[in-house]
Amino acid sequence: MHGLVYRGPGRRAWEERVTPVLREPTDAIVRITTSTICGTDLHILKGDVPSVTEGRVLGHEGVGVIAAVGSGVSTFREGDRVLISCITSCGRCDFCRKQMYSHCREGGWILGNTIDGTQAEYVRIPHADTSLYPIPADGDEEALVMLSDILPTGFECGVLSGRVQPGDTVAIVGAGPIGLASLLTAQFYSPASIVMIDLDDKRLEVARTFGATALINSRDGGAVQRVLDLTGGQGVDVAIEAVGVPATFDICQAILAPGGRLANVGVHGVAVSLHLEKLWDRNVSLTTRLVDTATTPMLLKVVQSGRLQPSRLVTHRFPLHDIMQAYDTFEHAGREGALKVILTSGS
Amino acid sequence: MHGLVYRGPGRRAWEERVTPVLREPTDAIVRITTSTICGTDLHILKGDVPSVTEGRVLGHEGVGVIAAVGSGVSTFREGDRVLISCITSCGRCDFCRKQMYSHCREGGWILGNTIDGTQAEYVRIPHADTSLYPIPADGDEEALVMLSDILPTGFECGVLSGRVQPGDTVAIVGAGPIGLASLLTAQFYSPASIVMIDLDDKRLEVARTFGATALINSRDGGAVQRVLDLTGGQGVDVAIEAVGVPATFDICQAILAPGGRLANVGVHGVAVSLHLEKLWDRNVSLTTRLVDTATTPMLLKVVQSGRLQPSRLVTHRFPLHDIMQAYDTFEHAGREGALKVILTSGS
Amino acid sequence: MHGLVYRGPGRRAWEERVTPVLREPTDAIVRITTSTICGTDLHILKGDVPSVTEGRVLGHEGVGVIAAVGSGVSTFREGDRVLISCITSCGRCDFCRKQMYSHCREGGWILGNTIDGTQAEYVRIPHADTSLYPIPADGDEEALVMLSDILPTGFECGVLSGRVQPGDTVAIVGAGPIGLASLLTAQFYSPASIVMIDLDDKRLEVARTFGATALINSRDGGAVQRVLDLTGGQGVDVAIEAVGVPATFDICQAILAPGGRLANVGVHGVAVSLHLEKLWDRNVSLTTRLVDTATTPMLLKVVQSGRLQPSRLVTHRFPLHDIMQAYDTFEHAGREGALKVILTSGS
Amino acid sequence: MHGLVYRGPGRRAWEERVTPVLREPTDAIVRITTSTICGTDLHILKGDVPSVTEGRVLGHEGVGVIAAVGSGVSTFREGDRVLISCITSCGRCDFCRKQMYSHCREGGWILGNTIDGTQAEYVRIPHADTSLYPIPADGDEEALVMLSDILPTGFECGVLSGRVQPGDTVAIVGAGPIGLASLLTAQFYSPASIVMIDLDDKRLEVARTFGATALINSRDGGAVQRVLDLTGGQGVDVAIEAVGVPATFDICQAILAPGGRLANVGVHGVAVSLHLEKLWDRNVSLTTRLVDTATTPMLLKVVQSGRLQPSRLVTHRFPLHDIMQAYDTFEHAGREGALKVILTSGS
Repeated sequence: MHGLVYRGPGRRAWEERVTPVLREPTDAIVRITTSTICGTDLHILKGDVPSVTEGRVLGHEGVGVIAAVGSGVSTFREGDRVLISCITSCGRCDFCRKQMYSHCREGGWILGNTIDGTQAEYVRIPHADTSLYPIPADGDEEALVMLSDILPTGFECGVLSGRVQPGDTVAIVGAGPIGLASLLTAQFYSPASIVMIDLDDKRLEVARTFGATALINSRDGGAVQRVLDLTGGQGVDVAIEAVGVPATFDICQAILAPGGRLANVGVHGVAVSLHLEKLWDRNVSLTTRLVDTATTPMLLKVVQSGRLQPSRLVTHRFPLHDIMQAYDTFEHAGREGALKVILTSGS
Repeated sequence: MHGLVYRGPGRRAWEERVTPVLREPTDAIVRITTSTICGTDLHILKGDVPSVTEGRVLGHEGVGVIAAVGSGVSTFREGDRVLISCITSCGRCDFCRKQMYSHCREGGWILGNTIDGTQAEYVRIPHADTSLYPIPADGDEEALVMLSDILPTGFECGVLSGRVQPGDTVAIVGAGPIGLASLLTAQFYSPASIVMIDLDDKRLEVARTFGATALINSRDGGAVQRVLDLTGGQGVDVAIEAVGVPATFDICQAILAPGGRLANVGVHGVAVSLHLEKLWDRNVSLTTRLVDTATTPMLLKVVQSGRLQPSRLVTHRFPLHDIMQAYDTFEHAGREGALKVILTSGS
Repeated sequence: MHGLVYRGPGRRAWEERVTPVLREPTDAIVRITTSTICGTDLHILKGDVPSVTEGRVLGHEGVGVIAAVGSGVSTFREGDRVLISCITSCGRCDFCRKQMYSHCREGGWILGNTIDGTQAEYVRIPHADTSLYPIPADGDEEALVMLSDILPTGFECGVLSGRVQPGDTVAIVGAGPIGLASLLTAQFYSPASIVMIDLDDKRLEVARTFGATALINSRDGGAVQRVLDLTGGQGVDVAIEAVGVPATFDICQAILAPGGRLANVGVHGVAVSLHLEKLWDRNVSLTTRLVDTATTPMLLKVVQSGRLQPSRLVTHRFPLHDIMQAYDTFEHAGREGALKVILTSGS
Repeated sequence: MHGLVYRGPGRRAWEERVTPVLREPTDAIVRITTSTICGTDLHILKGDVPSVTEGRVLGHEGVGVIAAVGSGVSTFREGDRVLISCITSCGRCDFCRKQMYSHCREGGWILGNTIDGTQAEYVRIPHADTSLYPIPADGDEEALVMLSDILPTGFECGVLSGRVQPGDTVAIVGAGPIGLASLLTAQFYSPASIVMIDLDDKRLEVARTFGATALINSRDGGAVQRVLDLTGGQGVDVAIEAVGVPATFDICQAILAPGGRLANVGVHGVAVSLHLEKLWDRNVSLTTRLVDTATTPMLLKVVQSGRLQPSRLVTHRFPLHDIMQAYDTFEHAGREGALKVILTSGS
């Protein structure tokens, strides 16, 4: 088979690989029918993720068909359609038992990181019973593959941790795929207004069509003041950080109303300055979270009920074997107007 | 002025009354511009509510203009537009301090019950600072008067107590105004499906236009089985009882999935049989609640944001001085297709 | 080996049995070192639990040593000391994934019910990885065996479902082992007072030594009035029903303060009359629950920290092979002053 | 009358003052019988709190007797014994209606800050109905005055915001009065262990007698490593910051287990460096809070039940007219072994 292989900083290749086989009784082998590329994959290619070593097949999102299951797998069998979670969960350890699968003692984020991932024709999934989800044979795979990572991430790390409530005023900093996933899923809770903040007017326009009620381009440094103006000087109930740099975090901490919640979703590479001298008496909370994908079953129901259309995040489509070209497009997302790039293989 | 006066079981009259005056420093006098009739008012007229004595002006819902305030009122002044809460709250007692205004030591449901109410040209509102809400001068009064009672009741007693969550399966038994208010506000939390159950096909059709995803006419006694069929034998996550008789409560307790919540909204006159021999190991909860109207500020925000259109509940309109005729209509709600009946006075 | 076998209503015997063997890769065989008898076992012997058929080895509580594990078991190995949960959990199904192990699609309460149980020298435990808990080799087995069922039951079904909070007034109806387990674990949350209600003065005296702040013998029918007197007419914040008959449920529903919580722990055989005509506007909640044993890891920590001494529930001790005599004692708990009866085998 | 007056940075005096009088109908005048000094008073004296101007009577803690009430006060009358909350609450504004009294639009922390305070023979209390609490005439005033500020602060900002649960591992950094108040009230929730961290061995020894299960002197910079050793490398479930400087905050952020909560109680004067590059995927929360004193009624119940003995925090006692000497002692708390210093006037 072929897979997209990390060859050290700045280098990737679509290479012939040995097709994965079962190693543990709890493994499954999945033939990939739909996959996609994540911003995290670009971080890896920059060399920013030291746990990823040369020769690794990338990718932690995917939909496919079970090709083989180990003797200890009871939920799935050959031919079943499945959604692959970006988080592998053993279902047994202390963290898994409290639904914090992100910190599973034997799993967590390992696909396309410490073991080979989903940007390939086949992938081995450890702990298949608790790391795969059944999907209908006629499900919309473009929509469903958004549930591997991006939707639960925007929802759990942004919306749930931020405790968005009906009537709330919400600000989301960053209108990339993750910020837009937060925007879509924040609406599960009927906030009164959602302010979207980004540097890119095109992405802000997309946000408007996704339900944002106000747009702010932060290029001129006036975003904080404009949020305060929009909220009568009060600030927002929930600020969702969906970028991962100090400047965007600073906007978030400056716009919180008393009692507000700052939900960090972004992946940060450096420390930030937290203004406790201003915040100590503001009754605020700040949360961080690696997605647990504990809400995947719920998200599946909501997608199936038609209340959520995640395929609106898809802007480009390629055959899996053209993944090198798909990466080229995704690496120039601004120029290309790219959000999520879909890769499909014969289903 | 005139008011609609209870004259004993089955008797009501539109009578000349002394215009109310301030009695306590915390009182306000409100000139009514919009009012409405509640199912509870019909219960009173049947003689079912012993706390209501002959000579009482009825009504606990209304929008109006402040005509006078006592010296202890600091939030409002003459000329302000206000929403009247059906629940009077002193803001000081132990119950008010934990937002359980329904059980306020000096308030609770007293309007149109133990003191004169809002189906009149003027009404005295005790504890005005904490029992009235400011509304914009150009607000839609038909929509706003639904926030006096019916919307917070459907929301707090049904949706909040039932803890409706995204992806849930919800059943609402009773498609009258309160059940429909639960239906509208349940959608704040994006359930995957909402099954509406009633005896009246016309009301069920209204429910469909309000967002119900399945309709069941329970006339033939097969409602429980049909809910189980719809849910793969599993039952519902939330059952909202919006009628108040044993038969409808029985449907609710029979359709709960393990872990389900039964939120009782209906006013019950007799005991019900609770099947603990079946439910003891089902991990269910059952709640009762008199509305606190603690969510009124939030509901005002959601109405103003356009995400909720409560005026869809309005089917008939009368001038306040034709309230006797409005009662005739409301008393034959089935025949008349009546939900909420609006009464207006010169604004 | 030998086991205590159900031989139809009223009949039990200590019989020679085939030692259990591994059937599924996820099974473990445990040699029992400590076991005990539950009130539920007496219900079974009365013939009240139709799922239990003749020939079944009883018992769902136990501590022991792993004798063998299947190929799919990764957490335990031969010689490990383990606590057996009364609830078997597959760790994979929808209920297990939300910690509602009681309703596990392949487990739940099956030990000593639909499969052979723990009142035997050996027992087969399905889904061992998620149904057993490691314990230290030098742990106090008398204390730990209380964590198989009785302590998580009193805690989860009574205290957690009743949401006991610091400063609360709590009433517990029933001072048997389960009620006492609720009494012990309610104190995790520092209620201001705990009223214990029972028919047996001896058990009430035990309750006093366990931390009850007031005792009421309900024999004369005056329990409700006395609770109201003790609470200034207000009623209690939490009422825990730990008996399972209509009379005790009636006490609970009559003593709830506005906003109160009724947590049902008792196993009921018949319906009860729920006075919704009095409760509909009282803002109360009522919960039922079969124990999930989801709190077992936490309870293990609290026992190990010394803050909880569950062995105080133990009144009698027998060798396992004298279990027939132990049953005689437990069946006459009132006369014998019996609470929990410990059975030990050579460790 | 006399009061302790701020005369600019470093200067204080016990001066003759005009006895306060009622200004608003909602005011009460309280004759102080017991007061105390807070660490915040020392901050004021250093000139660190710009809202406090020269000539201000200091103090925001006190117990006393009502000397006069305005016409709008309904809960209290002359001669009633009362506890004064450090937080003034109007009971009407949006923040008060959601129990966030700290941010009351007309109140919050104003006593001894923007209006004259409680270190005086008399004090004027605005919004008396919702800012005072009734206490029994024979109550222990030394214990009760701890409920003006220090106990609700330690409890709400530390324990509640940190969501301490039974079985948790808790670390408290700072064994001053606030840290000790967190230590006392953390035990409401039965954590398995509480690690106390401070620079002063004497204070650590006090912490041991208050219930700490492990003590760490952080002088040598090894506190983080020792906490990790104590927790098997895992870190703590809850870290409570009770000092207010970057060094102590750093300890807290370095010792959080995945899923841990950092509850900041300390008053910070400068920004801190938050290591999001390490924490972004740790599923942690960080909270700040100015005390709301919303839990004062509950704390009063727990003190009256005997489960909490806040007078253990008292180390020194002075007559109110010797307050200058009391400040001398409190300003050298380390040398004097001082925690809380009680001031009493003829009761």
